[in-house]
Amino acid sequence: MVQNFVYRGVEGAVKKVPDELPELGPKDVLIKITHASLCGTDVHMIPHGMALGHEGVGIVEKIGSQVKTLKVGERAGAGYLRDSCGHCDYCLKGKDIYCYERNVFGEADYSKGTFGDYYIGTETYIHKIPDSLSSADAAPLQCAGSTVYSAIIQYTVPGNRVGILGIGGLGHLAIQFSSKLGFETIVFSTSTNKEKEAKGFGASEFYLLSEPEKVVKPIDVLIVTAGRYPDWSKFMKKEVLARTANIVVLSAPTAPIELPSWPFFFETYNLRSSLVASRSVHADMLNFAALHGIKPTIETFEFSVEGFKECLDKLNSGKLRYRGVLVK
Amino acid sequence: MVQNFVYRGVEGAVKKVPDELPELGPKDVLIKITHASLCGTDVHMIPHGMALGHEGVGIVEKIGSQVKTLKVGERAGAGYLRDSCGHCDYCLKGKDIYCYERNVFGEADYSKGTFGDYYIGTETYIHKIPDSLSSADAAPLQCAGSTVYSAIIQYTVPGNRVGILGIGGLGHLAIQFSSKLGFETIVFSTSTNKEKEAKGFGASEFYLLSEPEKVVKPIDVLIVTAGRYPDWSKFMKKEVLARTANIVVLSAPTAPIELPSWPFFFETYNLRSSLVASRSVHADMLNFAALHGIKPTIETFEFSVEGFKECLDKLNSGKLRYRGVLVK
Repeated sequence: MVQNFVYRGVEGAVKKVPDELPELGPKDVLIKITHASLCGTDVHMIPHGMALGHEGVGIVEKIGSQVKTLKVGERAGAGYLRDSCGHCDYCLKGKDIYCYERNVFGEADYSKGTFGDYYIGTETYIHKIPDSLSSADAAPLQCAGSTVYSAIIQYTVPGNRVGILGIGGLGHLAIQFSSKLGFETIVFSTSTNKEKEAKGFGASEFYLLSEPEKVVKPIDVLIVTAGRYPDWSKFMKKEVLARTANIVVLSAPTAPIELPSWPFFFETYNLRSSLVASRSVHADMLNFAALHGIKPTIETFEFSVEGFKECLDKLNSGKLRYRGVLVK
Repeated sequence: MVQNFVYRGVEGAVKKVPDELPELGPKDVLIKITHASLCGTDVHMIPHGMALGHEGVGIVEKIGSQVKTLKVGERAGAGYLRDSCGHCDYCLKGKDIYCYERNVFGEADYSKGTFGDYYIGTETYIHKIPDSLSSADAAPLQCAGSTVYSAIIQYTVPGNRVGILGIGGLGHLAIQFSSKLGFETIVFSTSTNKEKEAKGFGASEFYLLSEPEKVVKPIDVLIVTAGRYPDWSKFMKKEVLARTANIVVLSAPTAPIELPSWPFFFETYNLRSSLVASRSVHADMLNFAALHGIKPTIETFEFSVEGFKECLDKLNSGKLRYRGVLVK
């Protein structure tokens, strides 16, 4: 029995609380966490008392009797998807993120998170970190990287013009993946201050969110990485979004989604959603990031309750550039 | 110069008004109309004074000097798409219905319609009617048939469970196409009175619109043929619509589209739109209908202003089963 500590919300505040880890099952892997980064979804779960963290990287300390793909001493990452049934249609088709019995962060199993000393994951739901990726850079890829990579590869075809709305934890990675996947990558942001940075990430064009009509050629796929949706009436024009364009949202607002029906229908748009990634896509994403030198822009914090709070405050203030990683 | 008459809205009423046809261009085809059916989109255009009709069939009376695919004396049908530029990306990819310079009924060129004596169409935008389809049955296929066939083939993959919401001008054809395309076809309607008829069209299951949760297995693609959208919160459940399901709307409401954001995102749905059909799809649809004996349920009316009014009144009262065809 390993004595563990996890970070979880206790009466609204984040505390480090003791946690006893179970014996490893035959497919389980015990990871000693070295790096964990903070995602907006963690923030939502603080009031619910859940053990926090779904972007964690560490060193494999022990493996179950049947584990084939990871060895003690290797680096591994844990993300949003933790388990799936393995026998449903989704699982059999490699779409395990949609399994009806899935275990994803925030939906089920509030007992474990990557903000802690140790983490037990099941083989294939945790991923070997390619050698050329540092653990600090690999942590935010476990959820943010998976999310944007999966969305882009699902809803694009070669030759598309890909719009990225928002430059934040998701957006700054989406620009890099889109660009390295070979797409013309068009970034929309609230401030011209971000143009240089966006182009550094690989953007081919940059426009203010308030002036999408300036785009020189219509966009085929718009990835909405911002937490707030844009003014759809400005985007749903055939000069901005090409007819049949895919509009992909990566988060759910609390209010209902409202779309202007006339342009949606007569310009023939498609509103797509995408939730993080299935295992095979996650693994492909890590390899792609390693191959192309894609890495998040991070700020590091001490791996402590104080470091967590500091990181959380900065995230909440909107000043974090762009992902906060706690480092042991 | 051929002296023609067309039916159009004049101060809100439909009148038969004189119309001089131009000389045929090299790719033009003059059709003597024998059958024309009434679509809801015509009704919308009455107040706008447009020449009405985009579901017409007749006999080719004369062809332009370069016409290759139709001969005098053959039967041909004219529908919603009337022209496209031929040189844009959409046209070059066979997606001419999305051409930015398209000419579709109601968007441009208010001068011609299939409710009239004659109709001039451009080769490839008018379609030869397969021998086994009667002209009366072929008329409603020109828009309603194209619309539902295109939607189904775009957004399904073999093995899908296809839901059809609504049994009307579009819905009763959608059930037939879906069933003959080999899909399990699940019909939702407001009244149990329609169950027998739906099953006659090929439905494998039938449920009340108010009780979609009774469906025995989740649906992969939902085709919303009704003019009014359903209560999305009843459908956006993983037991009703499978995760990643495509929800395809075939009309635009006047009010904004409002979707419950939480299930839309976490069950990962996709809202798709589809506008009638490109030329190649239209031609495939006619061949498919002929091959499988798909035909609309129609009521016929005299081809006169009185017949038009009678048909229009029945359509507006909701009593038309399911498409009204004016016959000469």
